[in-house]
Amino acid sequence: MSTKGFRAAAGEGGPNHMSVEEFRVNAYRVVDWLCDYYENIESFPVLSEVEPGFVRSSLPLSAPIAPEDFSIIMKDLEEVLLPGITHWQSPNFFGYFPANASPPSILGEMISAGLGVQGMLWLTSPSCTELETLVLDWIIDMLALPQSYKSTGKGGGVIQDSASSAVLCALLAAREAIQKNSACETGTDPRLVGYCSEEAHSSVEKAFSIAGLGRHRLRRVRTDSEGALSLEYLEAQMASDIEGGLLPFFICATVGTTSTLSSDRVQELGSLASTNKCWLHVDAAMAGTASICPEFRYLNRGLELTDSYCFNPHKWMLTNFDCNCFYVNDRRPLNAAMSVLPEYLKNEKSDKSEVIDFRDWQIPLGRRFRSLKLWFVIRSYGVEGIRQFVRSHAKLAKDFAQWVSADRDFELVTYTGLNLVCFRVMGDDRKNRVLLDTLNKTGRIFLSHTVVEGRFVLRLCVGQVRVDEKTVIRAWETIKTVAAGL
Amino acid sequence: MSTKGFRAAAGEGGPNHMSVEEFRVNAYRVVDWLCDYYENIESFPVLSEVEPGFVRSSLPLSAPIAPEDFSIIMKDLEEVLLPGITHWQSPNFFGYFPANASPPSILGEMISAGLGVQGMLWLTSPSCTELETLVLDWIIDMLALPQSYKSTGKGGGVIQDSASSAVLCALLAAREAIQKNSACETGTDPRLVGYCSEEAHSSVEKAFSIAGLGRHRLRRVRTDSEGALSLEYLEAQMASDIEGGLLPFFICATVGTTSTLSSDRVQELGSLASTNKCWLHVDAAMAGTASICPEFRYLNRGLELTDSYCFNPHKWMLTNFDCNCFYVNDRRPLNAAMSVLPEYLKNEKSDKSEVIDFRDWQIPLGRRFRSLKLWFVIRSYGVEGIRQFVRSHAKLAKDFAQWVSADRDFELVTYTGLNLVCFRVMGDDRKNRVLLDTLNKTGRIFLSHTVVEGRFVLRLCVGQVRVDEKTVIRAWETIKTVAAGL
Repeated sequence: MSTKGFRAAAGEGGPNHMSVEEFRVNAYRVVDWLCDYYENIESFPVLSEVEPGFVRSSLPLSAPIAPEDFSIIMKDLEEVLLPGITHWQSPNFFGYFPANASPPSILGEMISAGLGVQGMLWLTSPSCTELETLVLDWIIDMLALPQSYKSTGKGGGVIQDSASSAVLCALLAAREAIQKNSACETGTDPRLVGYCSEEAHSSVEKAFSIAGLGRHRLRRVRTDSEGALSLEYLEAQMASDIEGGLLPFFICATVGTTSTLSSDRVQELGSLASTNKCWLHVDAAMAGTASICPEFRYLNRGLELTDSYCFNPHKWMLTNFDCNCFYVNDRRPLNAAMSVLPEYLKNEKSDKSEVIDFRDWQIPLGRRFRSLKLWFVIRSYGVEGIRQFVRSHAKLAKDFAQWVSADRDFELVTYTGLNLVCFRVMGDDRKNRVLLDTLNKTGRIFLSHTVVEGRFVLRLCVGQVRVDEKTVIRAWETIKTVAAGL
Repeated sequence: MSTKGFRAAAGEGGPNHMSVEEFRVNAYRVVDWLCDYYENIESFPVLSEVEPGFVRSSLPLSAPIAPEDFSIIMKDLEEVLLPGITHWQSPNFFGYFPANASPPSILGEMISAGLGVQGMLWLTSPSCTELETLVLDWIIDMLALPQSYKSTGKGGGVIQDSASSAVLCALLAAREAIQKNSACETGTDPRLVGYCSEEAHSSVEKAFSIAGLGRHRLRRVRTDSEGALSLEYLEAQMASDIEGGLLPFFICATVGTTSTLSSDRVQELGSLASTNKCWLHVDAAMAGTASICPEFRYLNRGLELTDSYCFNPHKWMLTNFDCNCFYVNDRRPLNAAMSVLPEYLKNEKSDKSEVIDFRDWQIPLGRRFRSLKLWFVIRSYGVEGIRQFVRSHAKLAKDFAQWVSADRDFELVTYTGLNLVCFRVMGDDRKNRVLLDTLNKTGRIFLSHTVVEGRFVLRLCVGQVRVDEKTVIRAWETIKTVAAGL
């Protein structure tokens, strides 16, 4: 047994850490546990069936005073925590949008956890910063995003935890760009007003709240029949706001809404934003990954007119949550909004602006080595592998949409050609609610819902790493059977 | 070889995923790689020696089209990324504050990555929410924090990524609590003004910027000779602000500043906050862990008068970055500030308020299963093991402070009885800068610096999982030798 590494913390009195050999043995066990989990994942009810309080009440009320053996912890994981897990990685999980965790991504996370670096500055691990700028530049070419987003020019990309943080960063950069007196220094101009569609993600509203503008300064403009922000209504609203002494400064366009994957018309919004000197941010959290396939690049139309853009590899690019790629055309207003420089973080490389310090690109100061998992994914699958992944899901969603369409007991509500199908069983909202509830209680599949034009609809999103034709066929059979039994 | 799990994404055309057996083999290799890393960690220069651009220019300019073998990726990790790592987990890393990654924490992260759950709602994995509330309640008793912070009452704890996000959440909750018209709805009242000491973390200023108040609405009050916020100056500043028509609403006290680990007088600030109806937040990011030992519980004095509190297990409680524990006395204003409820997230359990949904406690919507690693740590070490860990570091820091004091070539600048020693070599700032630079360039240790009363000082923080008496003795010898050679 090795005595090096993980040794006791002090010559006397320190705790006993696992030795390297003990860690190896326990880590192998964890790997084996995960392999068993994936072997058996379809045997668990997709949506956890525990009642509120089950997990908590099954565990001790207070922390142990003495160390506990690793086997006991693993036993509680198996017996107490596992029943309380909703299986996001099950091929039968069709709810919300997915949170992909592919094998190479899990391996990347393991290494990131083991290295334990904190990448707030270039200096605190050059690899953490440089791999992130490189991989985010790779993705620009992979998805055919505008070259102006590359870090080799005036722009750049950074990994945020989520699209919520990305839109907040975009908003803060936009505010900093428009105000003559820095908003960071002097506070927000209360005349600022922004726009998104009523189908935009709730995080846009949350960003307006956080930034001190308040939700009343975000106009949620109605959508047209295709679920796209209505330009007519937007123009009217902007004119009325300007007339009222307000200052339009920010538009958030959505490419792939959470409800139905409908998209705003970015090109037209780009002209409008440019005319009115507004910052244009695009939230393509789910749909963005699809542009890796040339046939889906219509999703990129107008991106050259945007100021910032984000999408989530943790949704559809096989990468563990959290991983949002956020890009800006010009990094200066973002850095101006986010920069702090206390004495204890000063260093020569940063002073000379030779390097990027990602602390100036995000809300927290510290950061994990998140590009590692993304790099593992991209290299393990290759661009072509990710394309096959996206195409196979789009194909399965298309099949499902066709089955729904062809069945007179069901109604296809929306399907935009990507991987989400919104549908109803014939009947009223109550019947559809009961259908959803009953389906999820079977434990065999998990779906979620939304409301489209006032009607309750079921959503089926094909995005799991392990979903396949058989899974989708079986899901459709389950849906039909349960619906018939209502 | 198993064919179940990780199978191809579609009957036709999907990419080849690693099978479960391939994943097992690769994961074992990753574990072995990490074990080798920890065996050899002291052989690497602590601070990375690469020049800007090295990592990036050593890797291909664009993403591979075809899948690459896992061995090639691991080879690049070893040959390209490793030289660009600053070794936060080295026992010779004494810079900044540490980012602990203990063996059980790494194991917890591995399981969290493998389960891949997204805990935005109770429903989306009850274990993720319930384990987090339980473990955060455990910690209240472990550290003897006020019972009012427990989730079983009106308060509660939540894991944030960092103390930066925690102070922003505290500020937003405070703003929501004070404004008659919800700040979230109607925007921030420009008369609001807040206070912290000039030694408070830069994230307090950043939070004021983000929240739209601007840095000019945060008074950075000077500190007294012990590095504590001067109550005299604070009272004078508040009186003058009220006189000027402003509305004091927020005080951030620091228990353990980043520069020197000095602390504000929370009890006295509590009275002042109460008289002036201000929200009192305590940032104990680094020092908080110490109150696990009864002898350090003087750090908790006055906490019963606070509205919110945070500390970072990722600094000194053996838990991987990111893990900040954030507590509020009353969760209503926090939830009011953070809540969004789009249709697609509605569910019966949330509607009936039977459960906690952590999406209403933080800035992002999605969240990882972060309590798992904390639970692994607490159970693996037990309360007594963590106490031994903290005590051994405090003992080593005390030894080091005594060696510095006793050496006439050096000057002890600050040492507060915890694990940070600020010191200088006799001579001017330039000499101290050169000493720091030369030390870090040896690769044998890594220290960082700060400025205390206008003078450049070196900081040595004892907080690594694998630090021990020999390491600290050797560090002191290196410092003496390098200083003598200047």
